[in-house]
Order: sequence, then C-alpha cells, then structure tokens
Amino acid sequence: MKNERTLLTELLQFRGQQRQDTVVATGDDGYIFRAGDTLLCVSTDSFCEGVHFLHEHYSPQQIGEKVYEATVSDIAAMGGKPTSIFLSLALSEKTPEEYLPALYRGIEQRAIAHGVEIGGGETTSHLSDHPLITVTALGIISGEEAICPRSGAELGDKIYVTGNLGGSAAGFKALTTKVAGFQKLKDIHLTPRARVDLVDTIAPLASSMIDISDGLSSEIHHICKASNCGAVINADLIPIDAETKELASLTGVRALDFALGGGEDFELLFTSSQNIDTELAHCIGEITGNDTILLQNKDKKEPLIVTGYQHFTPLP
Amino acid sequence: MKNERTLLTELLQFRGQQRQDTVVATGDDGYIFRAGDTLLCVSTDSFCEGVHFLHEHYSPQQIGEKVYEATVSDIAAMGGKPTSIFLSLALSEKTPEEYLPALYRGIEQRAIAHGVEIGGGETTSHLSDHPLITVTALGIISGEEAICPRSGAELGDKIYVTGNLGGSAAGFKALTTKVAGFQKLKDIHLTPRARVDLVDTIAPLASSMIDISDGLSSEIHHICKASNCGAVINADLIPIDAETKELASLTGVRALDFALGGGEDFELLFTSSQNIDTELAHCIGEITGNDTILLQNKDKKEPLIVTGYQHFTPLP
Repeated sequence: MKNERTLLTELLQFRGQQRQDTVVATGDDGYIFRAGDTLLCVSTDSFCEGVHFLHEHYSPQQIGEKVYEATVSDIAAMGGKPTSIFLSLALSEKTPEEYLPALYRGIEQRAIAHGVEIGGGETTSHLSDHPLITVTALGIISGEEAICPRSGAELGDKIYVTGNLGGSAAGFKALTTKVAGFQKLKDIHLTPRARVDLVDTIAPLASSMIDISDGLSSEIHHICKASNCGAVINADLIPIDAETKELASLTGVRALDFALGGGEDFELLFTSSQNIDTELAHCIGEITGNDTILLQNKDKKEPLIVTGYQHFTPLP
Repeated sequence: MKNERTLLTELLQFRGQQRQDTVVATGDDGYIFRAGDTLLCVSTDSFCEGVHFLHEHYSPQQIGEKVYEATVSDIAAMGGKPTSIFLSLALSEKTPEEYLPALYRGIEQRAIAHGVEIGGGETTSHLSDHPLITVTALGIISGEEAICPRSGAELGDKIYVTGNLGGSAAGFKALTTKVAGFQKLKDIHLTPRARVDLVDTIAPLASSMIDISDGLSSEIHHICKASNCGAVINADLIPIDAETKELASLTGVRALDFALGGGEDFELLFTSSQNIDTELAHCIGEITGNDTILLQNKDKKEPLIVTGYQHFTPLP
C-alpha cells in the first residue's frame, strides 16, 4: 500500500460538489464553512489501539482524554474554539464492559473543560480486538481575521511554536523502554492538552497555523508546501525542556530528534509578520522565498528531513 | 458485552457541557444546533466490512454509495438536507490500491447528486483486514417547522412511510442464498437511495420522523419511546412490492417479516396530524395514548416485537 501522504494527495481530488459556503476546503487541519454570519470548522480523526496507542500504557479514561484533545487540537490549529464533538467507537465483543464508560468519562471531563457538548455517540461491533475511535469536532471561528489556513505563510514571516517540543516523544520513549521516573514526560504523552487556551490570542496574529501532531519537521513542510515558500529553522531556538534532554541523554537519542520527529506535542506551530511576546510563543525561524526547508544547527545549514510518523509503514 | 441499545442508553448520560445553541441533543438520528439564524444538523455512522457489509456482495464503488446514502439518510430523517461530509477510513496494509479511489468515486458520485462537498477525508491503518468506514454528515434545516425529532409524535397522529419496505432485506436474502434474478431487490440492497428528495415536502408536515435503517418494528419503537406514546400498525397497509413477496414465498420467509425486521430500506417513517397525499407516503397506522405498540393483522391485534438487527449479537 502507498504511504499515507501519497494516498491522501490522490484522494484530495475527490471533493464532491464544491460549495459557495466553503471557506477552507479539504486538505487542511479542518474544513471551514460559512453558515449565515457564523464561521464553522469541522475536523475528524481516528485512533486505533495498537497503531495510535497501546492499552498497556493508558487507562481507558486517559485514552478518552487523549483522543478528545488530539481532535480539538485541529480545530484550534484552524483558529477555532471547539463547540461539539461526535464519537464513533468500533469495539469487539471482548471489550470489557467498564471500558466504554471510562473512555467516555475521559472525553466528557475534557469536553466540559472547554464548554463542549457531546452531540452524538455511536458504538458498533467490528471484527478486531483493537478498539477504533473516531472523533469529529465542530468549532466556531470568531471572525475572518482568526482563520489560520496552512497556506497563509508569507516571505519574511517569523515561525513560532507555543511551547516545548519533544516531550511527548520522550515520554513515549520512557514508557516503552520502561525507564523509571520521568512522570512529567509520561503525562505529556498520555494526557496531552490541546492549546485551545491560546486560540483567542494567537489566531488573529497568525498568518498560517498547524498543530504539532506528527513532529515539527513534518508540520513545517505542510505549511511551506501549502504556502508555496521555504523556511529556515534554527535548532538552538527550538524549546526543549530539561527533562526531555535528560531522558534523551539517558537513552542515547538526540533531544533535537525528539522535537523534530516526535509528534503528539499538540503545541501550535504558526507564522506571523508580527513580533509575538516571548511569554506567548517561541520564535524558531523564518519563512523564506525559495522552496527549501533548512535546519540551521550552529554554523551548519542543511535540508530539514521529515522524520515524523507515517501510517502505512511498519510499526516499530 | 451488553447489547447496543443498553449500552447507548448508558452512554447518552455523557453529554459534556450542554450548550445553549443546541436544539436537538444526542440520542436522535442527528444533533441539531443553531449557528446564528441557521439550523445545522450533524450525524455520524460507521460501517465495518464483515459486520455491516460483505466484500463478496459489493464493488468498492457500491460500498461508497451505500455508506454515503446511509449517513445522509439520518440528516433527512431530522428534516435536513446534506451539505458536506467527512470521511475516516481505517484500512489494513492488505487493502488493494484500487479499493480507495473506487470507494471515493462511489461517495463522490452520490455527493454531487445532492450538491454535497467532501469536506475532509482521513485514512489510517488499523490492525484488521476488514475496512472500517466512518462518515459524518452535516446538513441544513430550512427552518424550525422542518425539524423532525423522534419525540414529536402526538396522540391521533397518523403513521406514514415513504415507500415500500422489506426490499433491502429481500435483496440481501437473494444475495446470500444465491437465488438467481431479482436484480431489482439486489440493487435496493446494494445501492439504496436516501429520501433526501422528499425532505422539502415532508419535513414541514411531519411531527416526528426517523429513517428505516434497522426495520419498521425497531423504528416505531424509537418514535414511541421518545414521544412517550403507543401505536397501532396495520399489517395490511404496509407497502411491500410484488418482487419482495415473490422472493419471500420462494425462500419460505413471510414478506411481512422482511418489512418489520429487515433494515436498510432508508425510507422515512414519520407521523403527522395531517392527511398526507397517498402519492407521497403510505399511511400504515396511528399513534395511541398508551405505551403499547400493536400490530393489527387481519382480526388479530398483538404486541409488535422488535425484530430489527442489533449489533453485539452473533452474526448470522
């Protein structure tokens, strides 16, 4: 089977009947359309046990929290605030009875934190022992100026991230290699938080935005491809916290590789022509006019290779 | 594992943060909310190969058509017209390359027929050889008077269906027992059509509405439970076409059982205080004040047992 990216590019050709009320079409983190004067955003995401998460690491409630946050993170990345979600759960006969209510509790707890209603839930049986959870989120975008498509980056824009990167990947490493301690990193991986809290402040300032779900190297490529531009990222400016560095050194991984290739940090990566307060976001580079994406590491500048996770490749 | 209905009732308790813009909450065919002056409807549905359909019966394009129609049928049942859909496809490595584009072609063809845009599509790998397809549909409801919740039926309302019942179940029987001929019935099963065409006419007249996805006996129970009422259905008035009767007699099944228990006809079942033109819908009974649901068959009146398909029960 082709890799996910090639496949998605092909499938993007199928758009059905293009509508006049569409503002941002398929191919971005979410679809934006107009209903009267209201701008609405929709995004959908699926999570399969054994592919996207492993039962041995998570409680059912943590799975609920994480699938919720991962989905509303896409709404935030478009400049929206989530309002309602819709669940579809495919389970086998073997799923324990207590699994579903616990999963729902996790989802509901986070939904309430954001003022989000669970608008629908469907369960179905499927012929696999690995639960598959699909979450669709709806959100509202406050106005035209808050829309943040991937395609909005412009020459000279600064590139920002809203928080530390690589923590989730480091937490995953700590869990899989059974390193004791590092609970903070493990929590970042198990119960991440989408940056819905920053949307009101950042969305009006950002020219383009995406959430870090597959790793910085992958996300900056998405922005540059959609915006038809290049970028230089300065390795020294990428925010990585002390625990991530410590775990990296302990496990023989470059901390930078956690940040570039490790996904699921769910921080926001955005571009802006404005100087953003350092309390709000970290400037890590600049948009350039050509179509090359470079990593400046001390005196060396080299092409930034995509190392993010791809589906349809063998699992580690 | 509990059956689907018990489970869903439990899960309906999880509503997250109930919102002021919600018009019809979870538990119906779709969720209706207000965005400014616009009434929008959302519905989501999952389909698993081996549970909801078998590859041996369908071409990938037919699967696309059917999952599309089944999902927008729920929008129609709420009184809405579909505007956009969102897909999530879980596939294994073994899925042939031509499968996905063919599936998308089926979906797109039907979407274009309804003026519907494909707003998003996601593919993911999962650890099963049975593709799982989740479709979320969004629709617009023209106004308050067109909203058709399950809970709107009232004492004395007539009960109507928009077309012949049992055809899909009969087609399925013809396919599984390898009876030659009966192509019309097989087509009803393989490529059903949601009654989106009738929404503008029927929705303003209906007090409650649901689509026949699980069989008449099951759907009338849903309406009566939500509306806190009973019903009498007259067996002789249920429209069943000649081919369905012929196939029934050939395979030793009561044609009435195809109509009562066989789902996926995707006709609309609705109640109304008005006399509906017989060209538009068939009157099959009446809403009563008590909470019993009866089937009148010639001179005999007996409780109407739910015989519709339930998930989480062993497959036939």
